Amino acid sequence: MRRAADIAIALGPRTDGVQLHRWLYNELRVAILTGRLGAATRLPSTREFAKQLGLSRGTVQTVFEQLAAEGYLRGVVGLGSFVSSELPDLKAGTALPPYISTTQAFLSERDAGARTAASYTALSDRGRLLARTPFPIEGRTVPALAFRPNQPDFSAFPFDLWRRIASSCARSLRPNSFADGEAKGFEPLRRLIAKHLTVARGIISSADNVVIVGSAQQVFDLGARLLLDPGDEAWIEDPGYPGVRLILEATGAKVVGVPVDEGGMDVAAGYTLAPNAKLVYVTAGRQAPLGYSLALDRRLALLSWAKENGAVIVEDDYDSEYRFEGAPLAALKSLDYAGQVIYCGTFSKLLFPSLRIAYAVLPDSLVEPFTAALSLTCRHASLFSQAVLHEFIAEGHFGRHVRRMRLLYAERARAFRAAVDAHLSGLLYIPPITTGLDTPAFLPPGSNDMLVSQLAAEAGIESRPLSFYTVRRPVPPGLLLGFAAVSPQEIASGVQTLASVLGSLFDGSHGSEVTWGHPSIFEP
Amino acid sequence: MRRAADIAIALGPRTDGVQLHRWLYNELRVAILTGRLGAATRLPSTREFAKQLGLSRGTVQTVFEQLAAEGYLRGVVGLGSFVSSELPDLKAGTALPPYISTTQAFLSERDAGARTAASYTALSDRGRLLARTPFPIEGRTVPALAFRPNQPDFSAFPFDLWRRIASSCARSLRPNSFADGEAKGFEPLRRLIAKHLTVARGIISSADNVVIVGSAQQVFDLGARLLLDPGDEAWIEDPGYPGVRLILEATGAKVVGVPVDEGGMDVAAGYTLAPNAKLVYVTAGRQAPLGYSLALDRRLALLSWAKENGAVIVEDDYDSEYRFEGAPLAALKSLDYAGQVIYCGTFSKLLFPSLRIAYAVLPDSLVEPFTAALSLTCRHASLFSQAVLHEFIAEGHFGRHVRRMRLLYAERARAFRAAVDAHLSGLLYIPPITTGLDTPAFLPPGSNDMLVSQLAAEAGIESRPLSFYTVRRPVPPGLLLGFAAVSPQEIASGVQTLASVLGSLFDGSHGSEVTWGHPSIFEP
Repeated sequence: MRRAADIAIALGPRTDGVQLHRWLYNELRVAILTGRLGAATRLPSTREFAKQLGLSRGTVQTVFEQLAAEGYLRGVVGLGSFVSSELPDLKAGTALPPYISTTQAFLSERDAGARTAASYTALSDRGRLLARTPFPIEGRTVPALAFRPNQPDFSAFPFDLWRRIASSCARSLRPNSFADGEAKGFEPLRRLIAKHLTVARGIISSADNVVIVGSAQQVFDLGARLLLDPGDEAWIEDPGYPGVRLILEATGAKVVGVPVDEGGMDVAAGYTLAPNAKLVYVTAGRQAPLGYSLALDRRLALLSWAKENGAVIVEDDYDSEYRFEGAPLAALKSLDYAGQVIYCGTFSKLLFPSLRIAYAVLPDSLVEPFTAALSLTCRHASLFSQAVLHEFIAEGHFGRHVRRMRLLYAERARAFRAAVDAHLSGLLYIPPITTGLDTPAFLPPGSNDMLVSQLAAEAGIESRPLSFYTVRRPVPPGLLLGFAAVSPQEIASGVQTLASVLGSLFDGSHGSEVTWGHPSIFEP
Repeated sequence: MRRAADIAIALGPRTDGVQLHRWLYNELRVAILTGRLGAATRLPSTREFAKQLGLSRGTVQTVFEQLAAEGYLRGVVGLGSFVSSELPDLKAGTALPPYISTTQAFLSERDAGARTAASYTALSDRGRLLARTPFPIEGRTVPALAFRPNQPDFSAFPFDLWRRIASSCARSLRPNSFADGEAKGFEPLRRLIAKHLTVARGIISSADNVVIVGSAQQVFDLGARLLLDPGDEAWIEDPGYPGVRLILEATGAKVVGVPVDEGGMDVAAGYTLAPNAKLVYVTAGRQAPLGYSLALDRRLALLSWAKENGAVIVEDDYDSEYRFEGAPLAALKSLDYAGQVIYCGTFSKLLFPSLRIAYAVLPDSLVEPFTAALSLTCRHASLFSQAVLHEFIAEGHFGRHVRRMRLLYAERARAFRAAVDAHLSGLLYIPPITTGLDTPAFLPPGSNDMLVSQLAAEAGIESRPLSFYTVRRPVPPGLLLGFAAVSPQEIASGVQTLASVLGSLFDGSHGSEVTWGHPSIFEP
């Protein structure tokens, strides 16, 4: 055995700001891991070592104890501390450079690792599907530019009220508020949601059928996993919402795009295309992106087909509370006598996005499975946010805010319509706007809507090309334009900018008589 | 055509509290849906109808408009309103009883539906796995009873501070705080977490590698989906944490239990049992439930095997910050030079459960796929909670709280040890307690720990049988007992209660010389 006093341990320099004991721990650890301090090497006594290094003996003692606890050293009574002899051949295994500080070693190894990572950190086939397309979180700049689609005006949100309620909820937190909540969500909030849906959407349900989650995407994801095996067929709308298509594809389902026309999803075409589908995703209230409401005969036919075929319908009711004349149309779920519909709503568009509270109303038969899956994969949504939202609704602010926004958005829809009539006639066809935060705007047949959207973006106008929503069937060229988050002044100037972009692309030969509006588009 | 005046529309009685227009809407809707008002039937004029019913004409007008917008009625100029003729044969399809109010009809149909629901709302094979076992959310009663395992004492949490910070964050909410956040989480919080982990767990990472989620379960779920295809092998510890076993089984993985001994997971046994595993779940810091730390040679061997085999290690570091003497042991992730380890931590046990903020530190190669999957399936965690937590850490309260709890739990561990030595000697063997919130307590060989746990529960003592954690290999009989959330007085009386339960079961013939403690248990 070499005498401890013979060991010269080369330690790296200490970086500013690193505590003494942490530096010594790191340096000894890397010396052992790189094999510079070989197995069974005897270390100097803490007294000698402290003297060599000019440190206090207590510091060295602490470091030795930590290294012993982590298995790098072992102490033998009366003989001192030894490098563990049970470590694998470290020189070969970790291939750390021979002399380098731990942090540097780590970072340089990590960089080397990152360069070759793709070759050995293989995603599963399913994982590649899941990670294939990051589903972007948009709308993060405030305020929104004209004409960002699907965007509420949350600058009109009663911030002061929310702040007051949040602050009062914070002050009244009690020990019980800190314990875990129910997987289904905060019960008083579920009760208020059930009550609101009865009045606003004609849905008769109880708090027992409501589950609260962090986002509508979570409902689609859990629903797909609960109801679909790989290869099972699922209907979505074509054109339709890509967020759900990606989710369904990631579960390995066979996603079938069902054509959309002025009556919404063409249910009869669905039977033909995928008669054995187990799941149907539908935006019955206001089809995303085309804006049509699912016709009553199709609603009834869909429900009756689903009942016969044991299929489940996922109704995504993302913004149909904003109907500008009359009450919102009743939800498809309001006709769900047989318990085949999962209704999904979100507060992101009604209040503000960072709240991250959405909900589902489940048929009785799915309450237990859904709750079980939720408790396993997510536990539950943030309790504090649920409590604040509960207060906000209970005090009547939610109802008032939605009514106020409905008037505001209706006014903006009118301003938008007027500006379009004045400046975009013959360049864009926009169907009547009755509901929602945005509208499809059809371009002359044969246009490239991606190019138009890009040129508009260069001129400072946000939009989304309708072809973004295509599943399989070509969609008529057009843009999805949002009017709800844009002031009347910005609407006026934005429409003029858009008119000049379109004017430079199209010669106006279509005249003011639009012959390529939506009614002809969907005919054979 | 029948004259409108001939139509006698039998309407159900109005329930108290239901608004007039909602009652009329419901009754007409159900009359149409049940076929009592047949297709193409002409309705009375709003004036006549209002007179018949003794309602204002405006109410009838509103209801007719709503029914027309939803497709039940159509108006013909000069002729009045007609029931839509495009509806399917409703009598046959919906089979509603002939005369019943909508709500009653709905509820009775729904109940009938619920009775037969199981027969037609079939879960997928995968869905049955996912929903098979609700993963219970425990610990919801406050305060905890002695000896609830895995339970922090959140009555010792600085509520006032948290309330003050939450309330101040609420007051300083700005419009930007209401916009959507990043999928990875609030960047300033990610930076603080990375910094904390460098000091507390020896993990060198940057905010870029940290993602914030709602629960550790979410990390396991997304990790499993990204890395495993059905049939792929995954190692878990046996005995081990059921929450992760259920998650992995739900993804269709072949879950292989790797034996645990005093050195933690037996890595060499893992090679033999499942040499091609793609994922390894390990509680390296403090094995759940047995409490051992993964030995250094095994850590190095596991990392080197994972690197050669392209496997990913998920390190669940659920409570090892609570080490009672010396600093916490460095995490396995601190040795992850090649980027093979997903490190997972949670604030549920360090602060309080309802906060619902956990995080993962990802290898570079997994940052993008994980973020993409997160943005698609969950969007992001509640921004407000993240902001409050950020302030709480930035102001130094987090560090202080953890240090304070470490001292408190150490004192309780000592009190627990002393009480056990005094009253349970010969009845329970408890290994030295160095870390964490709970400890395994071994029963005499051959005992039925589920029975013991149940008898203890009847005497008012919470515990969890170790056999709850069994994967495949029988676990020595024992209980997991938590001491952290229990006051010294309750510890003393709880141990006495437990002693009388055990005393009545075992005759004490094992004597005070415990010969069945853990060292012999794991030998062949």
